[in-house]
Amino acid sequence: MEQQGDSLRHHCGVVGVHSANPDNIPEKLFYGLFALQHRGQESAGICYRKEIPEDGTGRFVTYKDLGMVSTVLSRYLEKPHPSTLGIGHVRYSTRGGNRLENAQPLAASCNKGSAAIAHNGNISNASALNARLSMDGSIFQSTSDTELILHMIARSRQPDFKSALIETLGELEGAFSMVMLHEDQLIAIRDPWGFRPLYIGFSDTITAVASETCALDMLKIRDFREVKPGEILYIDSSGVKSETFAPGTEPKRCVFELIYFARPDSLVFEESVHLTRKAMGAALAMDESAEADLVMPVPDSGNSAALGYAEQSGLPFEQGLTRNHYAGRSFILPTTSQRELAVRMKLHPVREVVRGKRIILVDDSLVRGTTSRILISLMREAGAKEVHLRLSAPEIKFPCYYGIDIPTRKELISNSLSPDGIAAHIGADSVKFLKIPRLMECLKDGEGYCYACFTGNYPVQPREV
Amino acid sequence: MEQQGDSLRHHCGVVGVHSANPDNIPEKLFYGLFALQHRGQESAGICYRKEIPEDGTGRFVTYKDLGMVSTVLSRYLEKPHPSTLGIGHVRYSTRGGNRLENAQPLAASCNKGSAAIAHNGNISNASALNARLSMDGSIFQSTSDTELILHMIARSRQPDFKSALIETLGELEGAFSMVMLHEDQLIAIRDPWGFRPLYIGFSDTITAVASETCALDMLKIRDFREVKPGEILYIDSSGVKSETFAPGTEPKRCVFELIYFARPDSLVFEESVHLTRKAMGAALAMDESAEADLVMPVPDSGNSAALGYAEQSGLPFEQGLTRNHYAGRSFILPTTSQRELAVRMKLHPVREVVRGKRIILVDDSLVRGTTSRILISLMREAGAKEVHLRLSAPEIKFPCYYGIDIPTRKELISNSLSPDGIAAHIGADSVKFLKIPRLMECLKDGEGYCYACFTGNYPVQPREV
Amino acid sequence: MEQQGDSLRHHCGVVGVHSANPDNIPEKLFYGLFALQHRGQESAGICYRKEIPEDGTGRFVTYKDLGMVSTVLSRYLEKPHPSTLGIGHVRYSTRGGNRLENAQPLAASCNKGSAAIAHNGNISNASALNARLSMDGSIFQSTSDTELILHMIARSRQPDFKSALIETLGELEGAFSMVMLHEDQLIAIRDPWGFRPLYIGFSDTITAVASETCALDMLKIRDFREVKPGEILYIDSSGVKSETFAPGTEPKRCVFELIYFARPDSLVFEESVHLTRKAMGAALAMDESAEADLVMPVPDSGNSAALGYAEQSGLPFEQGLTRNHYAGRSFILPTTSQRELAVRMKLHPVREVVRGKRIILVDDSLVRGTTSRILISLMREAGAKEVHLRLSAPEIKFPCYYGIDIPTRKELISNSLSPDGIAAHIGADSVKFLKIPRLMECLKDGEGYCYACFTGNYPVQPREV
Amino acid sequence: MEQQGDSLRHHCGVVGVHSANPDNIPEKLFYGLFALQHRGQESAGICYRKEIPEDGTGRFVTYKDLGMVSTVLSRYLEKPHPSTLGIGHVRYSTRGGNRLENAQPLAASCNKGSAAIAHNGNISNASALNARLSMDGSIFQSTSDTELILHMIARSRQPDFKSALIETLGELEGAFSMVMLHEDQLIAIRDPWGFRPLYIGFSDTITAVASETCALDMLKIRDFREVKPGEILYIDSSGVKSETFAPGTEPKRCVFELIYFARPDSLVFEESVHLTRKAMGAALAMDESAEADLVMPVPDSGNSAALGYAEQSGLPFEQGLTRNHYAGRSFILPTTSQRELAVRMKLHPVREVVRGKRIILVDDSLVRGTTSRILISLMREAGAKEVHLRLSAPEIKFPCYYGIDIPTRKELISNSLSPDGIAAHIGADSVKFLKIPRLMECLKDGEGYCYACFTGNYPVQPREV
Repeated sequence: MEQQGDSLRHHCGVVGVHSANPDNIPEKLFYGLFALQHRGQESAGICYRKEIPEDGTGRFVTYKDLGMVSTVLSRYLEKPHPSTLGIGHVRYSTRGGNRLENAQPLAASCNKGSAAIAHNGNISNASALNARLSMDGSIFQSTSDTELILHMIARSRQPDFKSALIETLGELEGAFSMVMLHEDQLIAIRDPWGFRPLYIGFSDTITAVASETCALDMLKIRDFREVKPGEILYIDSSGVKSETFAPGTEPKRCVFELIYFARPDSLVFEESVHLTRKAMGAALAMDESAEADLVMPVPDSGNSAALGYAEQSGLPFEQGLTRNHYAGRSFILPTTSQRELAVRMKLHPVREVVRGKRIILVDDSLVRGTTSRILISLMREAGAKEVHLRLSAPEIKFPCYYGIDIPTRKELISNSLSPDGIAAHIGADSVKFLKIPRLMECLKDGEGYCYACFTGNYPVQPREV
Repeated sequence: MEQQGDSLRHHCGVVGVHSANPDNIPEKLFYGLFALQHRGQESAGICYRKEIPEDGTGRFVTYKDLGMVSTVLSRYLEKPHPSTLGIGHVRYSTRGGNRLENAQPLAASCNKGSAAIAHNGNISNASALNARLSMDGSIFQSTSDTELILHMIARSRQPDFKSALIETLGELEGAFSMVMLHEDQLIAIRDPWGFRPLYIGFSDTITAVASETCALDMLKIRDFREVKPGEILYIDSSGVKSETFAPGTEPKRCVFELIYFARPDSLVFEESVHLTRKAMGAALAMDESAEADLVMPVPDSGNSAALGYAEQSGLPFEQGLTRNHYAGRSFILPTTSQRELAVRMKLHPVREVVRGKRIILVDDSLVRGTTSRILISLMREAGAKEVHLRLSAPEIKFPCYYGIDIPTRKELISNSLSPDGIAAHIGADSVKFLKIPRLMECLKDGEGYCYACFTGNYPVQPREV
Repeated sequence: MEQQGDSLRHHCGVVGVHSANPDNIPEKLFYGLFALQHRGQESAGICYRKEIPEDGTGRFVTYKDLGMVSTVLSRYLEKPHPSTLGIGHVRYSTRGGNRLENAQPLAASCNKGSAAIAHNGNISNASALNARLSMDGSIFQSTSDTELILHMIARSRQPDFKSALIETLGELEGAFSMVMLHEDQLIAIRDPWGFRPLYIGFSDTITAVASETCALDMLKIRDFREVKPGEILYIDSSGVKSETFAPGTEPKRCVFELIYFARPDSLVFEESVHLTRKAMGAALAMDESAEADLVMPVPDSGNSAALGYAEQSGLPFEQGLTRNHYAGRSFILPTTSQRELAVRMKLHPVREVVRGKRIILVDDSLVRGTTSRILISLMREAGAKEVHLRLSAPEIKFPCYYGIDIPTRKELISNSLSPDGIAAHIGADSVKFLKIPRLMECLKDGEGYCYACFTGNYPVQPREV
Repeated sequence: MEQQGDSLRHHCGVVGVHSANPDNIPEKLFYGLFALQHRGQESAGICYRKEIPEDGTGRFVTYKDLGMVSTVLSRYLEKPHPSTLGIGHVRYSTRGGNRLENAQPLAASCNKGSAAIAHNGNISNASALNARLSMDGSIFQSTSDTELILHMIARSRQPDFKSALIETLGELEGAFSMVMLHEDQLIAIRDPWGFRPLYIGFSDTITAVASETCALDMLKIRDFREVKPGEILYIDSSGVKSETFAPGTEPKRCVFELIYFARPDSLVFEESVHLTRKAMGAALAMDESAEADLVMPVPDSGNSAALGYAEQSGLPFEQGLTRNHYAGRSFILPTTSQRELAVRMKLHPVREVVRGKRIILVDDSLVRGTTSRILISLMREAGAKEVHLRLSAPEIKFPCYYGIDIPTRKELISNSLSPDGIAAHIGADSVKFLKIPRLMECLKDGEGYCYACFTGNYPVQPREV
């Protein structure tokens, strides 16, 4: 599902690090963000507290730019930047276009001190909050939700930062897994529904917070736990203090994190991403009716599910599509009509594997169907006898208000065509999606997830003005 | 006086363009800013209204970065960007360090619409205003004065943008020559004291506003006039409307614009920069007592004054220092102890001119004296018999609160040494400064200028909190 | 085996394109080289004949630089460059360090016309030839073998380019798969031993030559064949003419192309790379004695062999190592002691897969053993019970004189340790290599390959001076 | 005369440094080349001998690229590169277009050792030499003359480098001021006619060679002398050894070095550039007939001559044109029809100086007349009453074969129009050129110069094949 222009966009990834003693925090943020690069490739940034040894104070330094972690932040590998805390962010544009103004972290000073924030998610009542703040005289220099939060804290009549923050969180609806800096404190927050993942981990020298455990692995942290939905953590030199700011809300985690967004070696929502995907693939196989010779993934998005499918079905697993790992974003194809070329540059069939075969081709999901159509034509060209496309996600039919950039309903192929119609359209012999009940069976707590993009049942109603 | 590290910094330059019909406004801003490059070389930026032909509306697009106009903005020469209005800015850091956050124009949306601002000057009561806004819950993403102004407009209880702007201007103290965009209107404002210059000009197709007339010349505008101190101009498709927002204030123009900052071919404050500098040089010659063989400028800052000195004195004018025009900012010398090298890379004596000669060396002003000391030693090395340094500015002894980045009082050589002491320190045979009364005689309205950096008499008292 | 610093280096890739009618040849070279990027990442370049419509002639234009194809050559996607023929090259340094002087293609004019050359391989009698040419007065501007060839053609007493080329080829020993331009002709050449692969393909509009078929696939060419060892092909508007310049030599193809270098979806030496690797994995499994729970590849170099191993052994295939595809060369780690970090940035175990398991870990080959040691410690850390490393190549003990950059004999771990010694050294429970006879059984023509890096039996003796 | 597209091109500048003890030679080359930047702005490069402390040997390292000295070579300011000798080069394209292949220094190894060369000038019998070498089997990787010289040395039957070099020099015709490296020796050579300047200087620690003395000044060298026409200097740790390789040739120095190319503070040909230009200006004034109010230079090319004119004539000297020093080559104007804009970006009249005045405008020379026409129209626009253009060079009518890039005869305005015709064409009230006899009187040895571009009398006949 990863072809540019025909995919759901990863949204954002966040990381935060606190060290009791001054350490090279920007370097740690670099490595953490590097492991989260798959969550956002349009901009990268960090904000850290630069120690001022002269007077024992510090000030926040922010650096961010459009580009990949290794390009934007490699300057921080060159020499040490002593610091005790910092946060970092990678992003795709969701609300707010691909503009530097919207890159994060966002730092500002206000009547409650200096603060910085890095945010993964989408505030679903942002329009209403924006309207209220605007009426009261706030100015908006970006179109991101994140600026809202800082305004609300500054505006709050609460006497201090912490109580203003709690008050503000009480007014936010939607998805927010966040890390913040306030003076010498690192703060981690997860919305009451727990839409987006967030983990905290501990090593001998640092405490770190990150969207996925793969970032904690990079920092050699083996002792970690999930930040709970509705939990707020204050991390400073005195240790970690936990509070719950919204008791009683039922969790509604984003099932797409497990289906597609997260890295296979990560834990999110206390589930192994790889094993859950294998279970989804196996579940697909349970309802299979087609006769086939082999099972193949669309690499890498379909890898785990195809493996699960093969194990469940007993069919041979094959790697019949080669992925060119040099295919990235470093150049622009001259015209969009060259999409076929773009697919060909990234994925290519192994002729000797597919020739004459009846193939189960496993991918994670289907959005517009453009890439799949090209891919299947490449496989036909290479001699495939039958291609049965299997998706480890149900049919996507509805927009997301919690941070995933889903095309308009009209563009979603499952809103205009049935699975059989899709098969005809993309040239497959058959197309099947995972059923929602089957998907729920793959999860420890199937009820605790959001399936709104499949069902239209939104756990938090978006409020437009 | 221009050697890096031993100079007064230019502050900023602004430009604004309005066209009745859609035109390539960003290109015009490029050319205008290019002519103002000498007013600020650390960042460049524009904000223009991008026309949305579909619905006849527009939205503001901002692009700014650290660097020179030709680097940051050359992208706008490649293809047309249809627009009817825009503003641009070049800056040196004054209040607020060399950070991208402080680059201008600054654009924001608020309850009174979308606005953008580019500002030349320094608000002398910024601290007090900042404290008040902060208490009321504003957040500050930069350390520039400019953000204040947008906050105040948004906060105002006035019913519309225009009345909120007038209310805000009434609260500002200090120097502000500004251009603004609000919806489809270009607005030009000059503070009541008129510290910084601002001109408006008209051609058949556009109306343009700029810090100096050299920018209007670039745009082939021959019909122009000064924006008056305390004047506000509203420029839109219905024409230009002028108002006075602070009647009765006595002008206090910055005399240093004429001494050093502005380009010789510009008009500022309705004075020819070149001719006024020649008059200053001539005034220096009137009080001369030293015997000399020739008069030489430190190029290019002393060019005009040296010419005036030579004409008045009857001594031959010579160009005994060659300036290497490739010496810029494109690389960093390894250590600051290499200042001598830096001077040598930029200025070099013509041996055959200075050898055995008694020389009047004319520059505009003396700050720390470091460059002059090196320069005089280069001239001695080349065989100069006597070097008499003459400065077309009086002795600089006090900081500026209106936009010039003057070093601390302690660093200013005129606070620790008399002219004779300076001569001994820098190796000159004598050093003389222009007297303030002589300087005033060079100006049409000598009383209408600020001399605070020489006298400590501040026309507007800075208010710190 | 791909970790930087602990791998055999790919050598080079070449591509050539001829079109009967003027076409955007540089763009086609871009796409072909893009598919060959895995064969060389240090420099990229093309040389094409720019048509001069005025007089119906053309001249060679060369563009090359250090960097990846997408960076160096993306300029050629922007607008058409009408041309009828061109060649391209990607390279790793082998003989001759990482210097721009050694980037290819190399173009020169001489008494037999203008020519350009792009070369994959290594001339094993280069020193002797160089000494002779130098004595005769040739100058060398690079340290690459390629320059030799042009000198020899120019020096030849043969009357024309073609006969001089044939004479020159007769004197070259070692590996050379080459494409050349001479005036309006594209020439493809493969050394008599056939060390390096080379294919020619035909579409309706173009004839193309490339190191691997994956580059022809990119150009939508489905009709192709191997260029034979000792074959020379002249391609121009009159068609393709084939000659044999060294009859009677026995082929000695580089077995490492099949083991590691080539892309799995390519054909080289008329073998499917993927299927041959699967066969190697299966062969490993035939001699297995260890008990295990699952088979895992080191991605991506061990992918195909692990699949073959799993099929043969009946053990479950798993993807227990995640590869971060953003790990590239775009930044430099501060110290080489950070190798562990480098491995961690690229490969990470899926904890839930490896925990408590006895694992067959399949990779292609072992050079120094550094990466494997780190990888196995990461797997232990993630809870693996046993790790049995299996390599689909035999033990590498000897240098290569035909284009592979193998470390010194001392650095090759198999020269100092037995498989058991290696297992102890890298922390594996056991280490096993593919036996040479088994390897030969995986190939259609086992005798027709070079195994010198395993055996020291060199088909062509290198001649040093 | 400096406007891009309407000027004679500077050709090249060279520098060489030798130090008895290892020193940071690349840094010294940087500073020397920086001072020679005006002699060539299209590429910059150095070649230095990198010391190999292990075995007391060294090897040549070359680094060159398209761009300015400060961009291409600033990397050498970052850390020391211990070395005892090196050479550097800045270039404009003359023979051979603007291609990296033609950038210098050019380094190669041959049967007489490793050598590198940086060359200022043009070999007028290059075609004949090229034909001979080509016939003998040399290959040419560039189109520069410099490659020829290396081929000839390598081809020579002389037993050693030095005698081969002398033999080669005896065959070269035309202009060549060169620096070479051979093993541990720096060699400086000037052609027997002395077309291009070359100086050698000595400080306590280094010996340096450079095109102009301004480069030696940068290196704090005060003890220098001209390298004589036909002189060859061998500089190594044993000192400097001088030889004459072509006795009896009459010097024919390029008079344009004094008219336009060299920096005013330099000595070239043992003449002060500034004072010679002043004399040319004075000579113009001697033949003046026009009545005028003031004298103005076109900055900076006319500065010195205008000063000389003013002194001789007794008319006031004025600086009525401001030059924008930020106008460079860093961006491309969209269309060539925007030449007027380009002039306006660089030069602008001071309205108050020129208004109502009769002006003598002094520039160095007239090539196509395009820039002058625009400049005069800008002056009219600013109110000038009369503009009399005076050129300190005679009329340019013939091409140069010794290193200056003069347009075709057809493009040279003086081949199609008389001075009066030119005046009418460019809108001047009159145009006058310096007479050749007057020019000769400005020089110590008027007979020892080449005036071929004015007269067509070539001291060395170019030989085309």
